[in-house]
Amino acid sequence: MAKLREEVCWANKMLPACGLVTMHSGNASGYDPESGRLVIKPSGMDYDALTPEALVEVDVATGEVIGSRYRPSVDLPHHLFLYRRLEGVRGVIHTHSNYATAFAAVGRPIPLCLTAIADEFGAEIPCAPYVDNEGEHIGEAILRFRNRAPAILMGNHGVFAWGPSPKAALKAAVMTEDVAKTVHLAMQIGTPKPLDPEEAEKWYDRYHNRYGQPG
Amino acid sequence: MAKLREEVCWANKMLPACGLVTMHSGNASGYDPESGRLVIKPSGMDYDALTPEALVEVDVATGEVIGSRYRPSVDLPHHLFLYRRLEGVRGVIHTHSNYATAFAAVGRPIPLCLTAIADEFGAEIPCAPYVDNEGEHIGEAILRFRNRAPAILMGNHGVFAWGPSPKAALKAAVMTEDVAKTVHLAMQIGTPKPLDPEEAEKWYDRYHNRYGQPG
Amino acid sequence: MAKLREEVCWANKMLPACGLVTMHSGNASGYDPESGRLVIKPSGMDYDALTPEALVEVDVATGEVIGSRYRPSVDLPHHLFLYRRLEGVRGVIHTHSNYATAFAAVGRPIPLCLTAIADEFGAEIPCAPYVDNEGEHIGEAILRFRNRAPAILMGNHGVFAWGPSPKAALKAAVMTEDVAKTVHLAMQIGTPKPLDPEEAEKWYDRYHNRYGQPG
Amino acid sequence: MAKLREEVCWANKMLPACGLVTMHSGNASGYDPESGRLVIKPSGMDYDALTPEALVEVDVATGEVIGSRYRPSVDLPHHLFLYRRLEGVRGVIHTHSNYATAFAAVGRPIPLCLTAIADEFGAEIPCAPYVDNEGEHIGEAILRFRNRAPAILMGNHGVFAWGPSPKAALKAAVMTEDVAKTVHLAMQIGTPKPLDPEEAEKWYDRYHNRYGQPG
Repeated sequence: MAKLREEVCWANKMLPACGLVTMHSGNASGYDPESGRLVIKPSGMDYDALTPEALVEVDVATGEVIGSRYRPSVDLPHHLFLYRRLEGVRGVIHTHSNYATAFAAVGRPIPLCLTAIADEFGAEIPCAPYVDNEGEHIGEAILRFRNRAPAILMGNHGVFAWGPSPKAALKAAVMTEDVAKTVHLAMQIGTPKPLDPEEAEKWYDRYHNRYGQPG
Repeated sequence: MAKLREEVCWANKMLPACGLVTMHSGNASGYDPESGRLVIKPSGMDYDALTPEALVEVDVATGEVIGSRYRPSVDLPHHLFLYRRLEGVRGVIHTHSNYATAFAAVGRPIPLCLTAIADEFGAEIPCAPYVDNEGEHIGEAILRFRNRAPAILMGNHGVFAWGPSPKAALKAAVMTEDVAKTVHLAMQIGTPKPLDPEEAEKWYDRYHNRYGQPG
Repeated sequence: MAKLREEVCWANKMLPACGLVTMHSGNASGYDPESGRLVIKPSGMDYDALTPEALVEVDVATGEVIGSRYRPSVDLPHHLFLYRRLEGVRGVIHTHSNYATAFAAVGRPIPLCLTAIADEFGAEIPCAPYVDNEGEHIGEAILRFRNRAPAILMGNHGVFAWGPSPKAALKAAVMTEDVAKTVHLAMQIGTPKPLDPEEAEKWYDRYHNRYGQPG
Repeated sequence: MAKLREEVCWANKMLPACGLVTMHSGNASGYDPESGRLVIKPSGMDYDALTPEALVEVDVATGEVIGSRYRPSVDLPHHLFLYRRLEGVRGVIHTHSNYATAFAAVGRPIPLCLTAIADEFGAEIPCAPYVDNEGEHIGEAILRFRNRAPAILMGNHGVFAWGPSPKAALKAAVMTEDVAKTVHLAMQIGTPKPLDPEEAEKWYDRYHNRYGQPG
């Protein structure tokens, strides 16, 4: 858990550093399947002031907070939902990053028109219709409208991204905003040419099987 | 007052740090109801050079400067007006931040189409028509055209934001620019879907009553 | 001259710091009327590597370089021209800053539609038609197409700004880009409302006569 | 080689510093004709963690990796291809920088409408049609669709830039994004006026023959 706390603290601090959040408008969590617990950002705490110890620990099965003096992020229910339902997910991030949220405000997916989207997401980044923030509405909408991509836009709201680690979830959140920006800019000067699905598959396969360092 | 000077100095320095002002184009003040005084940025001073001691202290009832070697911001009359008329306001900020001022240049409000706007503002951010900078014209226009949101756009001009502390006013100013950017971007790729007022109310209520740490 | 070298070195380093130049695409100079000399950035030198001593000193009357091991900026002729012809100018800056140069690429002035433009420039920022970089063509076009504003757009090219000191010229260059950005953004969501000239005059007068610290 | 490793490490670190890459989405290499080897970024390594020693050395004639514990960038084949075919090239850079890639997403070149484009590129920056990432397809498309400019857009993909040194390649990559941004912004407010080819030639000649310091 100490290592997970370090990584989740780092991922939260990277949200403003990467330009994904303004003031307190985002949060990152990480899940440790051995203990069955997650750690998540306290609600409304400045990213600068965040320490690994300040993160709130929560039992994923019961949703109970374990001995913290802070309240967890109000988005805790959505994080819990994703860890319970998405096999292999160990990191979840929520942001309102500007370009991606612009697509969400008009209810449009980010189309599969860049090799970078094929690499990282292997599909368009879908946009779920607006849902309120009660109960498991957000989690259910994510489950229903997601595709293979490790990120989704929530109508009128923002972005959820996930991955096999907090760092991977951060990468998905950063790349969501990055490709949203490029596609947005492209839409101002023409119609982005869609990538053929078979072509996209080649990039996805290469990126997921030949990229990076072994181990 | 020493603590207020620290906080107002910090809020002024955050204006360029948060990308809200260029050169000297913004100012922050804070009000201490016990002494009946505010402190405000000196006119035309570099944010880097600003110290808590350099802030100009002003009696809010009379508008008199209290023993400072600097002239206060030329926007002092608007700050005074707001502290006199808006119950509970302890911080006021003025900026010309780019995206928000773009809405002001075309005389449009920032529509209530994002959950972040519902959270922070609980309403569209209104835009007052153009007024000149004489007497209390700006203050009067703010009072007349504001809604529940702690920020307003001034036609052809810029942004005023306020709150129960200088830090809260800063947050309102930062969020005004942030949501202005997202909504602007959304308007380039479609028509942002308005949030239903009842839905917006749920977000506003949750954010103002369940968010953050107690106390 | 030592003080002028410090100020011109600082103004050059501020060009990338303020986001006005990329790589080596801008330069600042300052003029000392007592000695009749200017100092200007050496051609193609990294801003990081620039020191006050590395600046190139030039006799303004003759255009001769005074004992420098570096070549002056290739834009020297335009700086010389402005110091010779514009009464009271002590600082000149040239940039290709993005938003302002976008107006220049389509040959449009930046319209007088913001109080910030009235404050700083007191007029629209005009755009001269394209001229080549031979002889005094650029200087002549600046003289012919400028208005009271201390900055001008050069068609297909970029920005020249000037003032009574290198710092004032820097402020004019920074504000040119800042208002270009706001007006550009406004043009994407409507038609910026022009400021009435009499209204603009009130802001200009206030800013030039009541703003800042005395002396 | 030690000096080349330093310069290539620096060029890679400049990619995020100049805003050209997000996460790991770009790479720089340098070629030493004496040894017949290049050094290139390891695949998927954080720019922060990169050291000159971590760069992967490759024999350009055979494509063999020389004694490295890291895998080279998956874009190695394209770098190899360019060093083998383009006379005098000693640095190659690949990015997905946002504005330039927006042009690539719609399959449009960056038109020759700014003096900065004439200076640096002497031509429009062309856009090759989409090709996949197999074998030498990318390298072949670059060779077929390039013009005199030291950069090219790859349809739906990103940017390749090159030059007589890694630093020169970096400058080409930075300027590609910078002029892409200005032209993109110009296209939102009108139709950028093309530069007459003869006029462009005058700027190109001046920049390549009279700019910078001798030697």
